[in-house]
Amino acid sequence: MDDKHHTSKTVAVVGGGLCGALCACFFGKHGIKVHLFELRSDIRQQEVVVGRSINMALSKRGRDALNYVDCEDLIVKNGIPMYARMIHDLDTRTHPIPYGTSKDQHILSIDRRILNELLLTEADKYPNITIHFEHKFFSWDPDQKKAVFYDGNGERREFSNLDAIIGCDGSYSAVRNALMKFEKINFSQDYVPSHYMEFRIAPMNGEFAMETNHLHIWPRREFMLIALPNLDKSFTTTLFLPINIFNAIQTEDQLIDFFQTYFPDAIYFIGKKNIITNYFSSKPLPLISIKCAPHHSSSASMVILGDAAHAMQPFYAQGMNSSFEDCLILFEQLNAYNFDFKQAFLGYSEQRVANSHAIVDLSYYNYLEMRDHVSQTSYLVRKKVDNLFYRLFSSYWIPLYSMIAFTRIPYLKCLQLKQRQDKILKTFRVISYTIFGLYLFKEFAIRVIKPLAIKFIVRKILPNFVAEKVV
Amino acid sequence: MDDKHHTSKTVAVVGGGLCGALCACFFGKHGIKVHLFELRSDIRQQEVVVGRSINMALSKRGRDALNYVDCEDLIVKNGIPMYARMIHDLDTRTHPIPYGTSKDQHILSIDRRILNELLLTEADKYPNITIHFEHKFFSWDPDQKKAVFYDGNGERREFSNLDAIIGCDGSYSAVRNALMKFEKINFSQDYVPSHYMEFRIAPMNGEFAMETNHLHIWPRREFMLIALPNLDKSFTTTLFLPINIFNAIQTEDQLIDFFQTYFPDAIYFIGKKNIITNYFSSKPLPLISIKCAPHHSSSASMVILGDAAHAMQPFYAQGMNSSFEDCLILFEQLNAYNFDFKQAFLGYSEQRVANSHAIVDLSYYNYLEMRDHVSQTSYLVRKKVDNLFYRLFSSYWIPLYSMIAFTRIPYLKCLQLKQRQDKILKTFRVISYTIFGLYLFKEFAIRVIKPLAIKFIVRKILPNFVAEKVV
Repeated sequence: MDDKHHTSKTVAVVGGGLCGALCACFFGKHGIKVHLFELRSDIRQQEVVVGRSINMALSKRGRDALNYVDCEDLIVKNGIPMYARMIHDLDTRTHPIPYGTSKDQHILSIDRRILNELLLTEADKYPNITIHFEHKFFSWDPDQKKAVFYDGNGERREFSNLDAIIGCDGSYSAVRNALMKFEKINFSQDYVPSHYMEFRIAPMNGEFAMETNHLHIWPRREFMLIALPNLDKSFTTTLFLPINIFNAIQTEDQLIDFFQTYFPDAIYFIGKKNIITNYFSSKPLPLISIKCAPHHSSSASMVILGDAAHAMQPFYAQGMNSSFEDCLILFEQLNAYNFDFKQAFLGYSEQRVANSHAIVDLSYYNYLEMRDHVSQTSYLVRKKVDNLFYRLFSSYWIPLYSMIAFTRIPYLKCLQLKQRQDKILKTFRVISYTIFGLYLFKEFAIRVIKPLAIKFIVRKILPNFVAEKVV
Repeated sequence: MDDKHHTSKTVAVVGGGLCGALCACFFGKHGIKVHLFELRSDIRQQEVVVGRSINMALSKRGRDALNYVDCEDLIVKNGIPMYARMIHDLDTRTHPIPYGTSKDQHILSIDRRILNELLLTEADKYPNITIHFEHKFFSWDPDQKKAVFYDGNGERREFSNLDAIIGCDGSYSAVRNALMKFEKINFSQDYVPSHYMEFRIAPMNGEFAMETNHLHIWPRREFMLIALPNLDKSFTTTLFLPINIFNAIQTEDQLIDFFQTYFPDAIYFIGKKNIITNYFSSKPLPLISIKCAPHHSSSASMVILGDAAHAMQPFYAQGMNSSFEDCLILFEQLNAYNFDFKQAFLGYSEQRVANSHAIVDLSYYNYLEMRDHVSQTSYLVRKKVDNLFYRLFSSYWIPLYSMIAFTRIPYLKCLQLKQRQDKILKTFRVISYTIFGLYLFKEFAIRVIKPLAIKFIVRKILPNFVAEKVV
C-alpha cells in the first residue's frame, strides 16, 4: 500500500481527447492533482476542427462512466436518440431494424467535437486539474518521477513529482511507445483495406432530410454508407470503401455512376455537386485495429486507456464507449486498492486485456455484418428469434448487440454468451429440421409410398394369387 | 527507370550488425556509395561484447549470400560443421539425429562476434563504403534526401544526398518506426513465455568436452538446453526456460536441484560452480517474434531487412540465414530493375513478405519440435520415413528441415510442401491401417471364426440331420 494519502498525489494524463478529458475528471473528482496534456490547441477556441469525425454513438458503458463524474445528463441533452437502424436497399426502399425491444434501448448520436468541448469544460471546473494545450509528450522517467514535453514553441517543458502517467493519447500513442521500452508488450496493429470519407446531408426546408431517430445504413457487401443525425438537423454521412475502389474513381462521371449504382437515394440527399466537391477535395482515411498486452507497467507507474490500448473498427460504436468504460474499470481497481497505483494498474490490466481483445474482434465482425449480413434474410430471422427469446427469457437470452450496447457485461463474456447462443440455435435448428424431415417423410410415406404400394399390390401381387386360383 | 546511373547513387545502411555489414558489402560490390551506421562502437576494438550471442548456425541461404560478395570461404574457415543433433536423454544417454542424408548436408556453428568482425572488415575494404560507429538514427526526410543521426557525443549529424535508407537495425528497428510513419504497416510483435540464458562448457584437457560436430540438445518438453561448438573448443550453451521457472529458482540449492533433475550430465560439463556464478550474475533474456508488411516504402525510398522486418524464435537457426537471403532477394530485384530503387523495393517486398511470415511461423513450430517432439518416437519415425522417401525420390520429397537449411526454396513454398507431405503420409497411414486391418480380419476369420463355425456346424447343425436320419 502507498503510504502517501491519495489526495496528495499527482498524475499526468496525456491526451485531451474524449478519453483523456474524461479520465482527468475521474482523477479530479477524487481530489488527485492532474496535469492534462493535449498535443493540439484548445478546440473550444477554434473555428473548425478538420478530420476526426464519424459521429459518436453513446451507449450504456459510456453513459455509466459519464454518470461517475456527474455529467451524463449534460451530454445526453446534446445527443439525438437512435432507436433503430434504417436500412436503405438498392431500390431506395427503406426498412427499420430496432436496436432493442423498447424505446429505452437506444443509442445516442453525438457530435465528437461538442462532446470533447463539454468534457474539457467539465475538467476545467476542477481546481485540481490543469490543462496544458500544445504539449507534445516526449519522455517519462519513473525513477525521477519526471515527464518531458515540448510545447507549441518547441520549448522543452519538464514536469516533476508525477506519481503516474496515464496514456489516453490514441491509436498512435506516444505513451504506449514509451511503455514498450519499459515492458515486454505483445502488440499488433492491422489496417483493413476499407478506408472512409465523410459527406454531409444538409437539412431540407429546415428539417431533417431523412427519418431522424435512426442510424441510416446502405449495406452493399464490399462497402457501405452510414449516416448519423446531428442537432443542427444535418446528417454526418460516412462512406466506407476498399482503397482500390477509392483509387479507381478518378473522374466526376465515375463518381456519380458509382453513387447512382449503389446509393441512388443518397445522391438526392447529399446533392450531386456536394458529392463531387467533397470527394475530390478530401482524402480517404485509413482504419486501424490495435491490440496490446498488458495495458500497464507497475514498475514504471504507467497505464494506457482508450485507443492507445485497443483501437478498433468503428462498426460497433464501441471505440468511445469502451474507452470510457476503461476509466470505470481503472477506478474500480483504484478504489479497491485505496489508490495504490502499482496494484491498481496491474488489476486494471488483468481485468481489461482479454475484454479489449474481444471488443476489437467483435468490432471487426460487426463490420462484416453491417456491410453485408444486415441485408440478408437469415440476419433478419436471427434478429427476430433473438428478440423473441429475449422477451421470453430476458435474463437468460440477451442478443449480442444488446449485451454490448445496453449492459456492462464484460466484452469477452458477451462474445462467449453469443457463441453459446449460436450453439443452442444450431442444435435447435438440427432438431427442427429432423422433426420436419420425419414429418415430411411420414407425409411422403402416406401420400406417395402408400398409394404406390397399394397399387403395386393390387396390380402386380394380387393378380398372381387370383391367377393361380383361376388356374 | 532512374535516369541517374546506379554507381552515382548513395545509400544509408542503418545497423552494422551481421545483416547491415553484409548488406553494405552488396551495395559496395555494385559500386554504390554507402554510409554504414552503427549505434555501438567498433566491436573490433572492444575486449568483450556483452549480451548478443546464441552461436550462429550458418546454412545454404546464408552461404549463398556470403558467396555473392566473395567471402563464403573466409567465413566457412571460421566455423565448425555440425552434421547431426546430439540428443541428451534424461538418463544421460545420447544419440545423434543427422541433419541430412550426407556429410555434405551440415550446418556451420560460428561465433556471432567473429562473423560480425569479419564482415565489417570486408566492408572496410570497399573504397565506396564509409562506416560510422556510435551513430544513432534519428530521422529521415525523403524529399530532402537527408537523414539525421546523433553521434556518441550527442551531436546532431546530418547526411544529405541519400537516395535510399536501408534499415538493418534489428528487432527494435528505429528505421522501421520511421517507415511506419510513411506507410500503413501491419505489424505485430510477440513475446513467448520462454527466456534464455547462456552458459559455457569449457574445453576439458584441451579438447572438446563433448562430441564436436554436433548441435547438442537436451529436450525437456517445457524447456531445453542446447550447446554449439566454438573454435576454441568450448561450447556456447543456452538454457531456454519459461520466465516463471527462472523466477522460481531463487537459491543455489534450487538451481542445482533443477539441473540435477533435468540436465544431470550438463552439471558435469558446465561445472556446478560455473552454473551458480553464471545464473546469479545474469538476467534471463526475452525472445521476440516480429511480423511486418510491407517491408518498404517506395515513395519514401525505404526498405527494411533482417530482424527489423522479421524477427523470429532462434530455433530454426534461420534468423541470420533469412536476413542474409534478404540481401540476395533485394539484389535480384535491384538487378532486374537496373537499380531503380522504387521498383526494386516494391518487388523485394512483394517477394519477401509472405516468406518472412512463413519462416517466423516455422521458427515458432520448430521451437515446439525441438523442446518436445525430438524426444518422441513418432518424430524419429517421421525422420526415418522422410529420409527414406528423400533417398527414393530425392527431387520430389525433401524433408522440411533440409528444404529450409540446404535449399533456397522460398520459405512459404517449404511450408506448403511440408503440408502436402503431411497429407500424403496421412493418406498412406490410413490406407496402411485399412489394409492391415483387413489382413488382421482375414487372419481372425481364418483362425478364429472358421474353426468356431466348423465346430458349430459339426456339433449343432449336423447332429440334427444325423438325428433325423437315425429317427
